Amino acid sequence: MVEANNAKNWPTVPPPCVGYVWRYMAWGQYARDVAAVADQIAAYAAQLAAGDDGLDAWVFDVDDTCLSNLFYYQAKQFGAYDPVAFKEWASKAICPGVPGIAQLFQTLRGRGFRVFILSGRDQQTLASSTAANLAAAGFAGYDRLIMRSAEYRGMSAVVFKSAMRMQLMEEGYRIRGNVGDQWSDLQGDFVGDRVFKVPNPMYFVP
Amino acid sequence: MVEANNAKNWPTVPPPCVGYVWRYMAWGQYARDVAAVADQIAAYAAQLAAGDDGLDAWVFDVDDTCLSNLFYYQAKQFGAYDPVAFKEWASKAICPGVPGIAQLFQTLRGRGFRVFILSGRDQQTLASSTAANLAAAGFAGYDRLIMRSAEYRGMSAVVFKSAMRMQLMEEGYRIRGNVGDQWSDLQGDFVGDRVFKVPNPMYFVP
Repeated sequence: MVEANNAKNWPTVPPPCVGYVWRYMAWGQYARDVAAVADQIAAYAAQLAAGDDGLDAWVFDVDDTCLSNLFYYQAKQFGAYDPVAFKEWASKAICPGVPGIAQLFQTLRGRGFRVFILSGRDQQTLASSTAANLAAAGFAGYDRLIMRSAEYRGMSAVVFKSAMRMQLMEEGYRIRGNVGDQWSDLQGDFVGDRVFKVPNPMYFVP
Repeated sequence: MVEANNAKNWPTVPPPCVGYVWRYMAWGQYARDVAAVADQIAAYAAQLAAGDDGLDAWVFDVDDTCLSNLFYYQAKQFGAYDPVAFKEWASKAICPGVPGIAQLFQTLRGRGFRVFILSGRDQQTLASSTAANLAAAGFAGYDRLIMRSAEYRGMSAVVFKSAMRMQLMEEGYRIRGNVGDQWSDLQGDFVGDRVFKVPNPMYFVP
């Protein structure tokens, strides 16, 4: 229900599902499913020819698309969103990479695509820790890390991310693919030629 | 991958997956997952107030949303689309109902919604058998069965269904919800306030 976006706006994992989500995330099926998404992306990208103008682009989300917050949410027992605690966690810059995504960056770069990282994280307070965490987790070669500046605070993810993608379009980039763990990464305006949903049963971003 | 629309344009279930799809469809998990979609729909509809003007509407697809083609695809071992054999099967009007969907019609009707059925099946050759099959499977109380007339032959499902939904909008209906087993039922124009994906690992309609 979550992956097909039938279940929306759920504030927390329901208690009867906590054990299921834990096992899904920690015992291998999550990693296999992410690998299957990465395979779908690589197969699609292999059919595309990136233009010589350097304007064919991919967009990736950060949280639970590039960087995993599994340890944070396990410690919270997949509880409700806690902005103060989450910011403290994100500031530590100790998120492991989501399996296979850093390698996917290299595959896309090798095929001539630009890679943009688009995050709803607060730019003012989390820009340096996010960049450091991405580097520590092996994410290299991306073109730009776009985060939420002060003027976009309080906007929904769909509205903020649509506005940022519009800017990329206005700069001339063609978004050939868009990768996120939330449907709010993948819906709205200028979503790209194809969108790819990475599994995330831990939380919902409206 | 199929349910999240990461896997697209697959012509047939890959041979290593046939046994998995068979077990998923026949051994109970499919029925439980459809019931979960129906629960999500009922919960969403319960929050809506249908207007007194009788213009609040729901749209349902036919094949593997209202009527199940499981027996046909099992006999075919989930093989590639065969338009002649499928038309022969559909003409027999012996599809069982997808579990729980006929009851959902009654729930929505009871809450004051109009229900429209929108199918890419050929109107000229399959209208009477489709209507008879729906009746035999307990689907009653819907407002209109909209099928593909001659002028829309050869169009993609997204284009045809978008055009039909636009007509409903022009008649004044407000599509509050849209239910289908294919993403092509749920994407395009005028898709409705919310869309609900019913599982279908058997085939892909572009």
